Amino acid sequence: MIAFSAVVLATASILGLTAAQTFQRLGGCPTLGCVLPPDQADFLAGQYFDIRLEVHAPVNGSEANGGVPDPNFKFTVAKANGSPQSAAAFFKVPEPALERWNFTWYEDLFARDAKTPSVVRVTSKAYRRVALYEPGDYVATLTYYNGTKTTANWNVKPLQQQKKAKNVILFIGDGMTTNMITAARLIAHKSINGKYQSRMQMDQFPVLGHQMTHSLDSYITDSANSASALYTGHKSTVNAMGVYADSSKDPFDDPKVETIVELLTRIWGSAIGVVSTAFIADATPIALTGHTRLRAQYGALIDQSLRGVTNYTWTKYTGADVFFGAGAEQFIPGSGSYQGKDYYTEFANAGYSVSMNKTSMLAAPKNQKALGIFCTSNLPVWLDRNIFKKNLNLTNDPSGNKKAALDLPGLKEMTLKAIDVLHERGGEKGFFMMSEAASVDKQMHTLDYDRALGDLLELDDTVNATIAKLKAMGELENTLIIVTADHGHGFDVFGSADTKYLSSQEDDRDKRGAIGVYEQSGASQYTVTNASISYNTGINFPVNWDPRYTLAQGTGAMPDNRQNFRVHQSPRRPATNITGKPSDDYYVNPKDNPDGFIVNGTLSTDEAQGVHSLTDVPVFAMGPCQELFGGVYNNIDIFFNMANCLGLGRASNATGNWNANGTAPTAVPATGAASDPANRVQRGLWFGMVVFMGSIGWVVYNL
Amino acid sequence: MIAFSAVVLATASILGLTAAQTFQRLGGCPTLGCVLPPDQADFLAGQYFDIRLEVHAPVNGSEANGGVPDPNFKFTVAKANGSPQSAAAFFKVPEPALERWNFTWYEDLFARDAKTPSVVRVTSKAYRRVALYEPGDYVATLTYYNGTKTTANWNVKPLQQQKKAKNVILFIGDGMTTNMITAARLIAHKSINGKYQSRMQMDQFPVLGHQMTHSLDSYITDSANSASALYTGHKSTVNAMGVYADSSKDPFDDPKVETIVELLTRIWGSAIGVVSTAFIADATPIALTGHTRLRAQYGALIDQSLRGVTNYTWTKYTGADVFFGAGAEQFIPGSGSYQGKDYYTEFANAGYSVSMNKTSMLAAPKNQKALGIFCTSNLPVWLDRNIFKKNLNLTNDPSGNKKAALDLPGLKEMTLKAIDVLHERGGEKGFFMMSEAASVDKQMHTLDYDRALGDLLELDDTVNATIAKLKAMGELENTLIIVTADHGHGFDVFGSADTKYLSSQEDDRDKRGAIGVYEQSGASQYTVTNASISYNTGINFPVNWDPRYTLAQGTGAMPDNRQNFRVHQSPRRPATNITGKPSDDYYVNPKDNPDGFIVNGTLSTDEAQGVHSLTDVPVFAMGPCQELFGGVYNNIDIFFNMANCLGLGRASNATGNWNANGTAPTAVPATGAASDPANRVQRGLWFGMVVFMGSIGWVVYNL
Repeated sequence: MIAFSAVVLATASILGLTAAQTFQRLGGCPTLGCVLPPDQADFLAGQYFDIRLEVHAPVNGSEANGGVPDPNFKFTVAKANGSPQSAAAFFKVPEPALERWNFTWYEDLFARDAKTPSVVRVTSKAYRRVALYEPGDYVATLTYYNGTKTTANWNVKPLQQQKKAKNVILFIGDGMTTNMITAARLIAHKSINGKYQSRMQMDQFPVLGHQMTHSLDSYITDSANSASALYTGHKSTVNAMGVYADSSKDPFDDPKVETIVELLTRIWGSAIGVVSTAFIADATPIALTGHTRLRAQYGALIDQSLRGVTNYTWTKYTGADVFFGAGAEQFIPGSGSYQGKDYYTEFANAGYSVSMNKTSMLAAPKNQKALGIFCTSNLPVWLDRNIFKKNLNLTNDPSGNKKAALDLPGLKEMTLKAIDVLHERGGEKGFFMMSEAASVDKQMHTLDYDRALGDLLELDDTVNATIAKLKAMGELENTLIIVTADHGHGFDVFGSADTKYLSSQEDDRDKRGAIGVYEQSGASQYTVTNASISYNTGINFPVNWDPRYTLAQGTGAMPDNRQNFRVHQSPRRPATNITGKPSDDYYVNPKDNPDGFIVNGTLSTDEAQGVHSLTDVPVFAMGPCQELFGGVYNNIDIFFNMANCLGLGRASNATGNWNANGTAPTAVPATGAASDPANRVQRGLWFGMVVFMGSIGWVVYNL
Repeated sequence: MIAFSAVVLATASILGLTAAQTFQRLGGCPTLGCVLPPDQADFLAGQYFDIRLEVHAPVNGSEANGGVPDPNFKFTVAKANGSPQSAAAFFKVPEPALERWNFTWYEDLFARDAKTPSVVRVTSKAYRRVALYEPGDYVATLTYYNGTKTTANWNVKPLQQQKKAKNVILFIGDGMTTNMITAARLIAHKSINGKYQSRMQMDQFPVLGHQMTHSLDSYITDSANSASALYTGHKSTVNAMGVYADSSKDPFDDPKVETIVELLTRIWGSAIGVVSTAFIADATPIALTGHTRLRAQYGALIDQSLRGVTNYTWTKYTGADVFFGAGAEQFIPGSGSYQGKDYYTEFANAGYSVSMNKTSMLAAPKNQKALGIFCTSNLPVWLDRNIFKKNLNLTNDPSGNKKAALDLPGLKEMTLKAIDVLHERGGEKGFFMMSEAASVDKQMHTLDYDRALGDLLELDDTVNATIAKLKAMGELENTLIIVTADHGHGFDVFGSADTKYLSSQEDDRDKRGAIGVYEQSGASQYTVTNASISYNTGINFPVNWDPRYTLAQGTGAMPDNRQNFRVHQSPRRPATNITGKPSDDYYVNPKDNPDGFIVNGTLSTDEAQGVHSLTDVPVFAMGPCQELFGGVYNNIDIFFNMANCLGLGRASNATGNWNANGTAPTAVPATGAASDPANRVQRGLWFGMVVFMGSIGWVVYNL
């Protein structure tokens, strides 16, 4: 941390703050008094949450106010038209202790280049595990600096305590957009004179919606905070999940919000399934139970997924019934696992069957909790598992033995097996499963469009098989199925490329002559049978991945790269650091598409990949409550609609019961104490983190 | 036409044909025997259409078969499980005369570069104005070359004769995608902590769908053939509307399909409104009544819009009740108008009030047909009409007096006035209106994203005002309102740009450092009040179009261009021909964004603009029959759903009646004679066209 005594104080200017955009002092806190959850937050009745208050005293920069944060701020909460009460009285909790810290940030890129950070001193309090039980409007008011006020208008949604769906399956195509679905349909489904002869499963869903994916404090989101919005009804900040990001250093003390998995476990005791083709500590799967501002805390997040939050009083959680994915790094004892422990053993000791390949997974007992970790890193994508199998020759065995993991399940096998376990273990209490096609996003990042579309088609094939299975089980009518995404990439197809012509031309400009637009795009050649090619991958996938005439496709956001529009026999790496500069400085990867033409990038040169985009993403729904998912809405509404359909709202501090339609048999402790003195898991981690946290403050936090 | 005797014959190879993509012998005809409407065509019961048969004899190239087309081909039609009858017997029409012609095309880019076209000789027949009245499946079979068969499976949709919606308003945002709506929302609607404080009108529609926009024979469409799909239920070929494209030279002899406007006029006599911000002869407005393979036949299409088809027997049409837009070139007597005539006078003689500015339009009588042509070319966009008004200083007065047209209506004024006239004139028979925001597309083509989003917001504002007006008139519940697009552009927003920082850097790579992604995108600065700026453009539009932090936005398909991410004070022209080569060869326009960084293009260097993309586009629906528009479907289904809701299907050869729910009071002539001997309008035109048709055949046809 830079000593603030060394920083020159600047004139205070509230107006100057509006320039802050590239960097922010604190997301969700445009003024110097911060209330988290912030203004406009929505809550499920009875949903647990923490409150964090901060008063900021900028030492320098456009907001500088003398650098002495108010230690005597007041905080009140009032029901609409009611009298404000102190929060301690309102929630019947002890007044928390005052905390203090400092942090730094840059006001803009000029300040960053000049290495002139703004320093902010902070006073703060946190109220832990409170809830609002009565639907309606509330006003939370922070008063500081002799009468300055920050007001947060909160709304508790109308109460829905009846469980209308026994099961909910939430499929997430990470980064999947309508544009990608359109492209995937084109390469996989045969069309005659403009009429498709087979249909994608998603296209057959009765209800379509669009969700807005932007975060609390930036209009482009990442997968942590968008997943968290879907699971909690609260938007947050990039890299955060299950919390609103505060400005303290500890990534595990940020104010939490309860997730749908925690609610469902607490209220109905339903079975929980987590399935992903990513490493399972990745944002989309782990945000179901994770509470941290830093998604990169992989090891600790795996511990949270097994034991729940342990550093503060929170709802009890003892692990999902099914946990299938990749990312053995967090399970093999060592630098990647939490406290160096063997998490295969930790899970086994908690009663899990442990599978490390498809054969074992398929044989796992249905009545036992199931962990399946099938390789290190992410699961190899569908295209490599089914077409370019030489790419499976890796050192990714989940045991850590440096051999190749070859007995791999795909998303479909994991999902169908998960349903068997969840159906058995959930019984009449039903189940909730999130199943993620993670590499739609991961391959879009590397501009490897074919690999992304392959995994999108695998998702569609999985949804298709899931519906068939549920129907055979007699559970289809009891199950709300949602297929959606968490954000997009700005991808689209704009024509065809004659790859033979492109490759034959010498000059970059001549190569571009291979691209046919409008009527010259012609018909999809991916669905034309080629006698020399047979993948045996079924009707929902292309019959030829490498035709002469391919899709001309791309995105507006990209690093420098070279395009030839052919399928990449090996996974793509479009840009590399070839200058040897110490900082990242990415140019075209000389080994990528050597017969293609170069397009210089549209992103900062320290970006080696494409990035997420703004677009609303589609929501397909079928089953009980499907009617809630039509039209256009915010991503948090998906949480509220699922919670509504599952009857998770509560008018009092008690759990529910599946058979009693909302009566509350089991009392749980009232609003919690401020801080658990044991505080063991994350405190240890936080002290361990100081080492690499460095001194430049805010920027470092956002790993 | 190249003499085919000079061309070397190649070995016949049916397999070789599958390579044809950049160029096609004939869309909708993959074999040498062509049936149009082709296999998989759907029909409304009672919808008029023509049939075109062709037998191709390639002289050279991969399909060469000796070059003698069969003059004795047979054509039969059978109802499912029925006996095939000759078409003449089936439709009770005379057997048409045999036609013959030749055409040429290129099999691929190598053949084009080598200047070795393939020559095809053709025998053909056309059956004019027939219809299928009985719902169900039909098989049409062309037999040629001693037993070779081309089979077309046709389907007539289930009969719906009852009128469920009195009025239908179809709003088309040309080229508008979900991604653009998301971006427009971000710049126009204020958000606090991720929750929008006002909503777009589209976002409030109860039903959302996606339509697939691909054409009959290419997966990227243009606005002619996509509009035609929406209006007729038949996909066609790029540049074609209201017809299936055949291979003959005459752009007005292609087989026609009846449009929703023609059906509605014939069956119910409802009032018809056509409103567009484009020149009114542009594809989207004119395809409501146009029947041609070549959308660029602007003058003739204006004549068709007033008098209907006159070269063949077809349904009678005497002009829309409202016709508001731009494009005075086709009305001022001269080179742009049909046969050099004064179309203001032609319309006035047909009973139209004629307005050439907003004041006159607003004063036009409600009970009279209304023509309003407000300028030459396209209407200046919303951004120029409201913010950058200096750009209105043009020579675009609709009188042709070379002065500036300054008394201009916007889409909203035109649409609301149109409703007044249509409501008055339609009376109990109701009305159908198409209202188009044309420049969403036109400005996306020039990568002028702000202008595109401005016109998208104008569309949304127009829809909002339309709903309010219909409500006030008591017509809202009688009116099906659809808001959709005809195709997309691969646009998205991927972050923010610090335009001050970008402009301050010298090096192109350093400039890219201004782009903030993920958390560095921050919040929209377009909605932040700036005291020095007041546009008075209302809550549905940005309060600042030129903030320091702008949207970093782009598309995957682009010519060479320079990006600075700022609003363009003047309309943008990203690429220019600076080399002086005779052929088009586009580089970065040196005058465009001189402080920006260069991105080389991803399109052929003869493209000066961006191009259309593949993505499905959204459909928003409210009102009677709204439930038909949820989920994912083909663009032609929008026609069938509208026709269903309007009760336009007919089980026999008679018109319907609004009051009688499908009974048929007025008989019209049965299926028509083959060819109108008068044939006056388009024949004249066709002979006039030979002059510039040149000798290279097919490529020339697709202007």
